[in-house]
Amino acid sequence: MHQVTFRFENNAPEVVVTAAPDSTLLDVARSANVAIDAPCSGNGSCGKCRVKLLEGTVDGPRTQHITEEEYAEGWRLSCASKVASDVVVMVPDIASAYQSRMKTADLSSPQELAIFRALEEKIRAAGIAFENTFVQAELTMDEPTLDDTMPDTERLTRALQAQGYETVKLRYPAVKKLAHTLREGNFHVFAAGLTENGVLTVLDVTTDAQPMYGCAIDIGTTTVTGVLLDLKTGEIKAKASAGNGQIRYGADVINRIVEQQKPGGVARLQDAIIKETLLPLIAVMCKSAGTAAGRILRMSIASNTTMNHLLLGVDANPVRMEPYIPTFFHWDGLQAQELKLPANAAAQVRLAPNIGSYVGGDITAGAFTTGLWDQDEFSLFIDLGTNGELVFGNRDFMMSCACSAGPAFEGGDISCGMRATDGAIEAVQIDKETMTPTLKIVGDAGQKPVGLCGSGIIDVIAELYRTSIISAKGQFVREGARVAHDAHGMGRYILATAGESETGREIAITEVDIESFIRAKAAIFSAIHTMLASLDMDVSVLEHVYVAGGIGSGINMENAVRIGMLPDIDRSLFEYVGNSSLAGAYAMTLSDAANEKIHELAQGMTYLELSTHPGYMDEFVAACFLPHTDAGLFPSSVQE
Amino acid sequence: MHQVTFRFENNAPEVVVTAAPDSTLLDVARSANVAIDAPCSGNGSCGKCRVKLLEGTVDGPRTQHITEEEYAEGWRLSCASKVASDVVVMVPDIASAYQSRMKTADLSSPQELAIFRALEEKIRAAGIAFENTFVQAELTMDEPTLDDTMPDTERLTRALQAQGYETVKLRYPAVKKLAHTLREGNFHVFAAGLTENGVLTVLDVTTDAQPMYGCAIDIGTTTVTGVLLDLKTGEIKAKASAGNGQIRYGADVINRIVEQQKPGGVARLQDAIIKETLLPLIAVMCKSAGTAAGRILRMSIASNTTMNHLLLGVDANPVRMEPYIPTFFHWDGLQAQELKLPANAAAQVRLAPNIGSYVGGDITAGAFTTGLWDQDEFSLFIDLGTNGELVFGNRDFMMSCACSAGPAFEGGDISCGMRATDGAIEAVQIDKETMTPTLKIVGDAGQKPVGLCGSGIIDVIAELYRTSIISAKGQFVREGARVAHDAHGMGRYILATAGESETGREIAITEVDIESFIRAKAAIFSAIHTMLASLDMDVSVLEHVYVAGGIGSGINMENAVRIGMLPDIDRSLFEYVGNSSLAGAYAMTLSDAANEKIHELAQGMTYLELSTHPGYMDEFVAACFLPHTDAGLFPSSVQE
Repeated sequence: MHQVTFRFENNAPEVVVTAAPDSTLLDVARSANVAIDAPCSGNGSCGKCRVKLLEGTVDGPRTQHITEEEYAEGWRLSCASKVASDVVVMVPDIASAYQSRMKTADLSSPQELAIFRALEEKIRAAGIAFENTFVQAELTMDEPTLDDTMPDTERLTRALQAQGYETVKLRYPAVKKLAHTLREGNFHVFAAGLTENGVLTVLDVTTDAQPMYGCAIDIGTTTVTGVLLDLKTGEIKAKASAGNGQIRYGADVINRIVEQQKPGGVARLQDAIIKETLLPLIAVMCKSAGTAAGRILRMSIASNTTMNHLLLGVDANPVRMEPYIPTFFHWDGLQAQELKLPANAAAQVRLAPNIGSYVGGDITAGAFTTGLWDQDEFSLFIDLGTNGELVFGNRDFMMSCACSAGPAFEGGDISCGMRATDGAIEAVQIDKETMTPTLKIVGDAGQKPVGLCGSGIIDVIAELYRTSIISAKGQFVREGARVAHDAHGMGRYILATAGESETGREIAITEVDIESFIRAKAAIFSAIHTMLASLDMDVSVLEHVYVAGGIGSGINMENAVRIGMLPDIDRSLFEYVGNSSLAGAYAMTLSDAANEKIHELAQGMTYLELSTHPGYMDEFVAACFLPHTDAGLFPSSVQE
Repeated sequence: MHQVTFRFENNAPEVVVTAAPDSTLLDVARSANVAIDAPCSGNGSCGKCRVKLLEGTVDGPRTQHITEEEYAEGWRLSCASKVASDVVVMVPDIASAYQSRMKTADLSSPQELAIFRALEEKIRAAGIAFENTFVQAELTMDEPTLDDTMPDTERLTRALQAQGYETVKLRYPAVKKLAHTLREGNFHVFAAGLTENGVLTVLDVTTDAQPMYGCAIDIGTTTVTGVLLDLKTGEIKAKASAGNGQIRYGADVINRIVEQQKPGGVARLQDAIIKETLLPLIAVMCKSAGTAAGRILRMSIASNTTMNHLLLGVDANPVRMEPYIPTFFHWDGLQAQELKLPANAAAQVRLAPNIGSYVGGDITAGAFTTGLWDQDEFSLFIDLGTNGELVFGNRDFMMSCACSAGPAFEGGDISCGMRATDGAIEAVQIDKETMTPTLKIVGDAGQKPVGLCGSGIIDVIAELYRTSIISAKGQFVREGARVAHDAHGMGRYILATAGESETGREIAITEVDIESFIRAKAAIFSAIHTMLASLDMDVSVLEHVYVAGGIGSGINMENAVRIGMLPDIDRSLFEYVGNSSLAGAYAMTLSDAANEKIHELAQGMTYLELSTHPGYMDEFVAACFLPHTDAGLFPSSVQE
């Protein structure tokens, strides 16, 4: 048994662990919860899991992702390196970049709350009340005496009945601590619960009148975001985000389902999202709001179909295997304790309903927030996450579809790609004459670039095309200081030289990267086109285009049109709606009518299966150009 | 830090454990789950926790429970001995006798099932249907295809709707494994659930048509007994009993409540009953029935008020402190998962309702089984466990009370007392002339005596009194081979000499023991008398006396009358009804009407608080004689 010592470029404390026989460095890292990015889940194809061997030996081939020079310096792919002695390795920052630090939002920033304010206005206007049936009753009881010995539950029930709640049910979390609570409060307490069909179900009894809390969570494949809110006023009390802990088992849903099938996989993936992600995330929010998780009485979760199956520990394999059958679309009656979610054990858990194996609750929740179901004119809703999902329609009908855009929008499949964390290049401009780039970097002033995130990739490709540095096929057609070629003649554009970058490694975008990304944007555009064509329509019918998702925050719509990802229509029709999945979950938490409406929308939405739809492949191939083989579709995308 | 090695007289494998600083041998034994009997919970008063020091030294005084000779041999009270070096101690069999081995009942013995058969007959005759609303539906569904991609939950729901179940709810345990179950069964499965108010709630979906199981449990302070049954037919599939794992924290409810108040005590007592007792008990029953705990869809639990509070992790301290307020009497809606009980996570848990701090669900369940609530004539129900509880009444009214009989009926507070396990003397006859005893011993033929259990104590005192060896005050008044006196003149009767006993220690009953027991029997009789007197009645109104409880199995009614414990009425009116608490729990599991009736009985039963009742103390003092100061109450108890 060999020992593996992980050291970290960012000077985090080193981790020493014993390697199980025959395990790779990635296996060992996973077992020790050491964050090493492996979007391909360790099959050697993505090249992201590189670490530097400082001492000892590992067994394994040099792969295409490591140059001979790098190999000599000690660089190895951790997924392709079996531990062959005691070893010491250095984990570079970029390899652990996915483990995005927990971020708590500053609620004094108007931007943070804008989406919720806008939502409430829009949804109320559509006739959906922002109300629920939670109640909090203040109770003052006589203290028991030798002549008045009724048990605590009966005393509480009678006090509630005196306030008009005829039928009262008590749930375990309230009863378990009732003796203590009543006595601590000198029999003056607050009972919090839910009224349904004339029955008050008490979930919690407290000595203070703290708000009843709800929690809305968006579980993205990459990032998890939550808000903690006052269940009666809707006021947001805290907001935070963190990386989805499952990501070490693969960047996309397929790799995670594969991992779930392995022995112990169900629990491993459930623990990664619940224990490792939601638990600290909710703890941080509760701390910031000055409350405890036990005060959360309702939780609403919006997520894609695979994410909600993995969350529940439900076998997701039939989702990925023909004929692609999820266990559930919608499902009522889930309780926090069934998943050991950090909340009152009897808290109600609402799941945003799925409508297909690849169009999940995040999309139904998101589409709801746009209000497109309340409009006469036609709208398109696009969620650009690890996958791309679309909803098209109006008050009369809605159609959805999903396309496999791959992880390119989030920096996967791109040699210098990374997520939109510190050091990511999120916007690029290129001077046509000098070819010199101007970069906008995520992070504090003076942050040097580390890699390229989704919005940066859109920008750099759009700018390379506009400045005629690359052709419509994505090939380099101009030479210059920033353009280089490798031994095989493959071109690349250098965004930052080794000296300019944070890591001392050049940051460039290669022809292979551009090809990957063109396929991703082509998937989106051809999905839009195919869906509209299936209805005998085209992009001219669109009156609104709502763009949502993690990619979106820095997205330059002009450039997204220029590369042929979004349709070439009046730019004022585009609206970036942020994390609409989270906003939808917020509405579900607060409003029973919104929850019903989201379920109603899901029931009524048709699902177009693109992969078997005639004509989709042709559309896709036609879109694999800048901006498109049919340049007439993009009149405003011209080269200078 | 010192090491403690426990060796066992019964040759169980030795246990080695590190002692926390300043801990006694009993502390160390508890931390290591080594069973050492300590009915007084370690305050030095009972003298039951003696062990023999083989190596090393302990700090602590010799107590009254250890003779100088024994002290020299190494005998120590483990609760009074602090570990002062590495030590090796021997745990005698009697010290671990409480850890009564798990016993599985032989269901081919008609005796084992008699109580349930008799119950069903009696209860049906009283108009209570033995029915519940569990259903098991056999479903055959079309397998999904690319043209029929509805999710599994919808497919299942539609199949159930086709059988007439209009509204279907699915609980988590069924949904979690649904994908697997449907495919394993080729979409031919069995759905088990509960119908209530027109809603079918599915708890389990399986590929086989195994019965739906229910589980009825009696949680006694000392012993826990359960039956596993077919929820539709009522057939008993397994029966088993085990010691209550909480016993190492004290023999009576008060000591356990004290332990619950200590840091971590709530979890410790809950673990002792759930993890250490119910889990193995139910596992044994499931194994014997060829099923799994997940197939248990309803559990009914009858237990005294303290036991059900400790089971639920509910603070029991207000139960023991004036004004003696339990958290609950009755409480609906508990689920197995809330207590992590070994059953289907969504299984319904029914609790037999309490009617006072010291008259619990075991008594309401037990009183139900006697049918006294359906009779015109007056009956008395007596449960002789660690406490004594009484119910008196008929179809028009019922009154209950509890008396603190102490642990004497189960061998506590008696120098050679033990529980009714192997080696216990359970019946005694004494020859008037020779004073020689004839003993009946629990265990296989040839078993030598170890100690004296409750029914044996009743016998020996009755026989000593009949044969005029002791006086009405319980003092020795005849001399002879079997009577001895210590240095202070205290008399004792020798049941087995050191040579005749299993342990090599003499087994005797002392004047102090007899005094203790007279107080216990006086508590019972004076409770009967006081309760009847409070209604202006006396024992002549009694048409039935039902005796239940652990003590009862070997009880000689004649001797119980002779010592003045039970009233001197026609012996044919006495009926031993065995474990009526378990039988009541069985009825609650199987029959919704029985469950309702038990709750109705509990609602209607009055509770007489004896401790503050005028006259009770006088009655008690008057009963502290053999048979009673008013010998006219016991005309048939005469000395020969």
